[in-house]
Amino acid sequence: MKQALAKMVDGRGRFLVSGQEYEKAKTVIFGAPMDYTVSFRAGTRFGPAAIRDASEGLEEYSIYQDKSLEEIDFFDAGDLILPFGNVTKALEQIGKAAAIVLGDGKIPLVLGGEHLISLPLIQEAHRVYPDLRVVHLDAHTDLREDYLGEQLSHATVMRRVMDFLGEGRLYHLGIRSGPAEDFRLGREKNHLVLERVLEPLRALLPELAGAPVYFTVDIDVVDPAFAPGTGTPEAGGISSREIIEVMGILQQLNIVGFDLVEVAPVYDPSGCTALLAAKIVREALLAITK
Amino acid sequence: MKQALAKMVDGRGRFLVSGQEYEKAKTVIFGAPMDYTVSFRAGTRFGPAAIRDASEGLEEYSIYQDKSLEEIDFFDAGDLILPFGNVTKALEQIGKAAAIVLGDGKIPLVLGGEHLISLPLIQEAHRVYPDLRVVHLDAHTDLREDYLGEQLSHATVMRRVMDFLGEGRLYHLGIRSGPAEDFRLGREKNHLVLERVLEPLRALLPELAGAPVYFTVDIDVVDPAFAPGTGTPEAGGISSREIIEVMGILQQLNIVGFDLVEVAPVYDPSGCTALLAAKIVREALLAITK
Amino acid sequence: MKQALAKMVDGRGRFLVSGQEYEKAKTVIFGAPMDYTVSFRAGTRFGPAAIRDASEGLEEYSIYQDKSLEEIDFFDAGDLILPFGNVTKALEQIGKAAAIVLGDGKIPLVLGGEHLISLPLIQEAHRVYPDLRVVHLDAHTDLREDYLGEQLSHATVMRRVMDFLGEGRLYHLGIRSGPAEDFRLGREKNHLVLERVLEPLRALLPELAGAPVYFTVDIDVVDPAFAPGTGTPEAGGISSREIIEVMGILQQLNIVGFDLVEVAPVYDPSGCTALLAAKIVREALLAITK
Amino acid sequence: MKQALAKMVDGRGRFLVSGQEYEKAKTVIFGAPMDYTVSFRAGTRFGPAAIRDASEGLEEYSIYQDKSLEEIDFFDAGDLILPFGNVTKALEQIGKAAAIVLGDGKIPLVLGGEHLISLPLIQEAHRVYPDLRVVHLDAHTDLREDYLGEQLSHATVMRRVMDFLGEGRLYHLGIRSGPAEDFRLGREKNHLVLERVLEPLRALLPELAGAPVYFTVDIDVVDPAFAPGTGTPEAGGISSREIIEVMGILQQLNIVGFDLVEVAPVYDPSGCTALLAAKIVREALLAITK
Amino acid sequence: MKQALAKMVDGRGRFLVSGQEYEKAKTVIFGAPMDYTVSFRAGTRFGPAAIRDASEGLEEYSIYQDKSLEEIDFFDAGDLILPFGNVTKALEQIGKAAAIVLGDGKIPLVLGGEHLISLPLIQEAHRVYPDLRVVHLDAHTDLREDYLGEQLSHATVMRRVMDFLGEGRLYHLGIRSGPAEDFRLGREKNHLVLERVLEPLRALLPELAGAPVYFTVDIDVVDPAFAPGTGTPEAGGISSREIIEVMGILQQLNIVGFDLVEVAPVYDPSGCTALLAAKIVREALLAITK
Amino acid sequence: MKQALAKMVDGRGRFLVSGQEYEKAKTVIFGAPMDYTVSFRAGTRFGPAAIRDASEGLEEYSIYQDKSLEEIDFFDAGDLILPFGNVTKALEQIGKAAAIVLGDGKIPLVLGGEHLISLPLIQEAHRVYPDLRVVHLDAHTDLREDYLGEQLSHATVMRRVMDFLGEGRLYHLGIRSGPAEDFRLGREKNHLVLERVLEPLRALLPELAGAPVYFTVDIDVVDPAFAPGTGTPEAGGISSREIIEVMGILQQLNIVGFDLVEVAPVYDPSGCTALLAAKIVREALLAITK
Repeated sequence: MKQALAKMVDGRGRFLVSGQEYEKAKTVIFGAPMDYTVSFRAGTRFGPAAIRDASEGLEEYSIYQDKSLEEIDFFDAGDLILPFGNVTKALEQIGKAAAIVLGDGKIPLVLGGEHLISLPLIQEAHRVYPDLRVVHLDAHTDLREDYLGEQLSHATVMRRVMDFLGEGRLYHLGIRSGPAEDFRLGREKNHLVLERVLEPLRALLPELAGAPVYFTVDIDVVDPAFAPGTGTPEAGGISSREIIEVMGILQQLNIVGFDLVEVAPVYDPSGCTALLAAKIVREALLAITK
Repeated sequence: MKQALAKMVDGRGRFLVSGQEYEKAKTVIFGAPMDYTVSFRAGTRFGPAAIRDASEGLEEYSIYQDKSLEEIDFFDAGDLILPFGNVTKALEQIGKAAAIVLGDGKIPLVLGGEHLISLPLIQEAHRVYPDLRVVHLDAHTDLREDYLGEQLSHATVMRRVMDFLGEGRLYHLGIRSGPAEDFRLGREKNHLVLERVLEPLRALLPELAGAPVYFTVDIDVVDPAFAPGTGTPEAGGISSREIIEVMGILQQLNIVGFDLVEVAPVYDPSGCTALLAAKIVREALLAITK
Repeated sequence: MKQALAKMVDGRGRFLVSGQEYEKAKTVIFGAPMDYTVSFRAGTRFGPAAIRDASEGLEEYSIYQDKSLEEIDFFDAGDLILPFGNVTKALEQIGKAAAIVLGDGKIPLVLGGEHLISLPLIQEAHRVYPDLRVVHLDAHTDLREDYLGEQLSHATVMRRVMDFLGEGRLYHLGIRSGPAEDFRLGREKNHLVLERVLEPLRALLPELAGAPVYFTVDIDVVDPAFAPGTGTPEAGGISSREIIEVMGILQQLNIVGFDLVEVAPVYDPSGCTALLAAKIVREALLAITK
Repeated sequence: MKQALAKMVDGRGRFLVSGQEYEKAKTVIFGAPMDYTVSFRAGTRFGPAAIRDASEGLEEYSIYQDKSLEEIDFFDAGDLILPFGNVTKALEQIGKAAAIVLGDGKIPLVLGGEHLISLPLIQEAHRVYPDLRVVHLDAHTDLREDYLGEQLSHATVMRRVMDFLGEGRLYHLGIRSGPAEDFRLGREKNHLVLERVLEPLRALLPELAGAPVYFTVDIDVVDPAFAPGTGTPEAGGISSREIIEVMGILQQLNIVGFDLVEVAPVYDPSGCTALLAAKIVREALLAITK
Repeated sequence: MKQALAKMVDGRGRFLVSGQEYEKAKTVIFGAPMDYTVSFRAGTRFGPAAIRDASEGLEEYSIYQDKSLEEIDFFDAGDLILPFGNVTKALEQIGKAAAIVLGDGKIPLVLGGEHLISLPLIQEAHRVYPDLRVVHLDAHTDLREDYLGEQLSHATVMRRVMDFLGEGRLYHLGIRSGPAEDFRLGREKNHLVLERVLEPLRALLPELAGAPVYFTVDIDVVDPAFAPGTGTPEAGGISSREIIEVMGILQQLNIVGFDLVEVAPVYDPSGCTALLAAKIVREALLAITK
Repeated sequence: MKQALAKMVDGRGRFLVSGQEYEKAKTVIFGAPMDYTVSFRAGTRFGPAAIRDASEGLEEYSIYQDKSLEEIDFFDAGDLILPFGNVTKALEQIGKAAAIVLGDGKIPLVLGGEHLISLPLIQEAHRVYPDLRVVHLDAHTDLREDYLGEQLSHATVMRRVMDFLGEGRLYHLGIRSGPAEDFRLGREKNHLVLERVLEPLRALLPELAGAPVYFTVDIDVVDPAFAPGTGTPEAGGISSREIIEVMGILQQLNIVGFDLVEVAPVYDPSGCTALLAAKIVREALLAITK
């Protein structure tokens, strides 16, 4: 693994058949086990480990894309070692790791952790790809200006992204919870679709064609029946079948960064959320690694 | 809070932004934490507390009705203090509390507890509104004449309602379990719809228009995938999306009483049942408070 | 099994090597799965089933008494079928079953259920043995005159026993929780020992020698570390080693009835409470069956 | 119960109203609590017991088939006593039990245990019905030649069935996970349908009409949202409503053997998997017992 | 409640019979639900709520001190509303609340949250009582200069206290885990006792007599058998009986502030940790409120 | 890592600060995740992984031995890859791995898995050290000739060891469960001590001085209060404090092999068993690595 990155991670990661060489990999997985700003139920810091453990129960081959992980080049760098409780320094570290991967022309695929970790990831992607689009799958708007006075919070992360991304470049899908003003803002400045994901995303394909796209998935976009293990589950979400199908569509996009956040193993007694998350990661790997 | 009611409750309740004044409220929440007659798995007495705790993870604003709890007047009186193990006295207390709220021209929105608590609630509503209709969402018929010799039981509650309500005024929706004779009785004397809820309810709107309606929801009408935390989960139920949509329809009815029963937190390890229940309560509040 | 008893039970019970003949048995196990009057956490109705299931993980042989269940005659009649929510009728049934067993000159060994089930058991034992002594192991006094207005409650059971037993015949051991007046009453009219069990019981042996003794064990006399699965766990109890040693002492007493109550499997995620309870039952069987 | 069988089982079983006479029964339930070859999460040996316990929460009557268990003749023989860790001897015992039941002209309905238990069951059915068809509902192909060098494994069971069944007689439905070569093999030699079950099965009815059919259901064909309690849950499965409807179709087939495998209670904290499994068994009993 | 404090809290607290008047109270409870800097398992933010819920299962009367909560004046102000993820601002708020209570001549009894919350509490107590002693019950030293580069951390809290307290005024009891240098430092500059608590504290009574003492209890000083629900459980701790007895000793000290930290309900499936914590709070209230 | 060993393991292991070089290590950890012959509750195959995960919550430094893992040379090779369900082949693999480590003059420290894994480990140690002594800490005798007809079983493992070890060389400590004949055999041919461990082991020191000793610890020797997460918990065991102290004594013995078996994470909801196991491993590493 590249020296600069190697110093920042614990090196314990291994998602399924992850290859041993960073250099050859086109997609690089790393975990960002941060959960300091969550307001309801914490515990997403154990998300990356649970997803990797669950991956051992998966096949490398996907019927959905008729393709196997053995056919693609990816590398799992393990989890970043982050300072507990220091939000700004942790975000800095996450951004630095993303910058290394992006700088090497690779795609970062990051496992959260809370949603705020997407901020530095998108910032770095934006630095490399100034015309970046962000597709945001979530139950929640995450568009507050501040949350109990804090500007850096899992509930403000997409507002912070708006600060630099430019109007009309942020696409919220599957949203079903937030303050009324968030919905107004999201509709006015960005694209915002209530509840549904698959069809709206298909409809967006022409608009997004060719553009560099960062794809961020909050697991709570999925209904709690399929993914109970998350901080703020919201009834009324999409099914696991739909999220898997959504991943297949990524083949048709130019994905330059991807994250899956808010998996909280402690609220996942049967382990099904981690298993679904591992499947989403497999499908994403297969779809975005070209 | 009114003195007579204040003496009966623990005063600890606070569902989300519940206002501080009973007098101004149009809808009054209270809990009826009774679970003495359940035959399978007990524990619904902790339902009201769990629903209130879960409400803290919710937004006040609903995308489904484009309305916020801040726009309506409701009051949460807390839980009734009930004598443990004394079924008749407990039902008496519940009826008394309902009578106070109804007597003040307000709508009681009651959190169970087991389904038997609906009996005194419906009795009091019937006293005030003699032409009352009852809409009953449940997986089970609850129409037995007696259960192991007992006439007052969670499994007989709707039969007891039939005793005074008058033919053709009870609507069972979503039902999928019960003895064969219950289905015969329900179809003969009442309206009974198997499995489905949303479309049948829509079809009933003309028939129910204007009439005073008591709406009772046993959480097990929802499939265990979405609401595992209940005493007798029955596979094959409706989705959380459907129950939420059903709540929106209540806007078009003249609801004079509402209850949500049978949430059993101890069988809800991920907390998703309580979260769904809190969402149902929010939607009900928004729809019935005019 | 005797016809009168056979009609009352579900016949599913089988504690370890329980023989097949009621007639030859000297000790008869039955379950009393009632939990209607509990004030905090319910669920003891599943206690008898959990104890029997756990017994499959036990050996028949006990190192503590150097004796095996294969050497004694006992019979497991299964659980009583009780009317849900009807306290008085359920107690009646329990008493009736005890009367049958006692009438046949056998010792009833009853698995609860809540502590109130001891009332009819002790009443029937008292009818047969008018000079009965009751030894009561518990964390709680259970001596209230009434509880929230109810005279029949798990919190009043020992007061109800006092009503007919006669002064000085009730021995409370291991007690560490209750209202101040209960302690005054217990000390004045009965024998009451705080926290400790083993040594005080040894000291009582001369006093109890020869007398007919009913022995009632609330599992919460044991510390929650060893027995978390109960309704109202109280820190500061005895160890599992101590309760096992206590059982051995029963060999030296003339036990005419025994119960073990308040095992609540739903609060016992590791199953250790049921396993300890099964061990207590094995030891009691070995000690009291002569 | 027949002497030969009686010696092999623990005799503790009683699924709902199971009659007391083996002789009159047309369908005979027994459990095969073996889970030695599982590769991910073990614990299915407790499946049969959990399914029976859950059956107590069910009604005898089914709305789906408008029929009650009281109308049919079945017998529950309890669980086989199997040697722990000895795969070949355990399979032998299972086959022997099936041979007895089949030899008496009855239908075995077996509760697993891991999927490998289907091998001796299907072998015995094949011996009696040489033109046997096997319908296989599962998330996984189970068609490996060997698994980590082992030929007898839950992951190879259907390959072993292919060894003797003859081409074109094995129907895989609902499959969504396996190595690529399994899918090639399944499609080439057998019938294999991805993800879906209900419609494909309906389409097969003419082809299967009259033929003796063995029906094996791995509970993981159902989505983890509805059935989390299994060893290798796979997101993207069918709903509980669909599996129940599938059972009704069995009325139109000539079912000569049935099993339901891979229920693992320890991963089923809310108990909903066992409850669904009990419902599947009830529906299967009603549909196949003629 | 005093206006300045009332604005800072959620006002939902009510530990058992907590009186309604802040003014008359001698001891004031509040919760500090902060858990941002924990390094292993988070979730202590739900500690205060769980402790209050558990208090409903307790008696007001204590056999250990032969005294009842009804005899003393205390007030429960509820939980502080803290900014999620902002460590310095949260500590500021906690300090401010403590300053109000201390300024009114009352004793703050604070429920954590993580151990770092003790820092502002002790700072404020030190401001009012410059000759303050701190008694620290914990499994861990918490004496690191920094933790992964952070100076404010649950693992550095006692080092930060040393920064201002003055040599020889800090007493560590029950300690059994930490880096070697922490033990050297603790022994050199403070008092440090390995593993044991009760006897060492008794021995310190003459030395502490009359001095103002701040008493901070990390629940993990208790063995995980008695208190599993905490972030970093350490085998080898004291029993629940010992911690209860320790509380009684506080009667003989001049306690000016008290906290109980690190209760994490999500790792407490049986609820016994919260129940023990509630008992510790009851005993502390009885012992320190004079 | 040595090539022969490297091919057999998954290489994922890393117990705390485990060094990177097999060659320099004096003690070599590996996991043997086999649980095929257990008779009650399975799941110990996940034991090694859970122990390593829990080790991250531990300090390297031990107060009990005043020594740190950083001062000793050990290596963690990860888990053996074992064929599921094939008992003889799995035992063969385990023996082969042990032979490599022993052949290199190193001490194997093996994490189970069920107790049967000790058989090949002790066999290999015996091959190298013909005058081997075995010290066996366990709740159960494990001395059956066969178990349900099987000679290789977790319940027969010590009998199989007796087959080759020679009389008087096997020391059973802490035993409290088994058939009567096991106790007779154990006392006649070996040394057998009921319930206690620490004092008896101290008394044995002179007898064992200098001799090569294999030390096998079944976690269930510890009481379920301290270690609930195991297959067959037996009330009445030693405390976690005692087992930790026992480990310190190993310094005075010539330990040539060590294992810790029967940790079953799925029955360990609070994680305390794995944490205690990790602590036992740390103490063992410090005591036996010279």
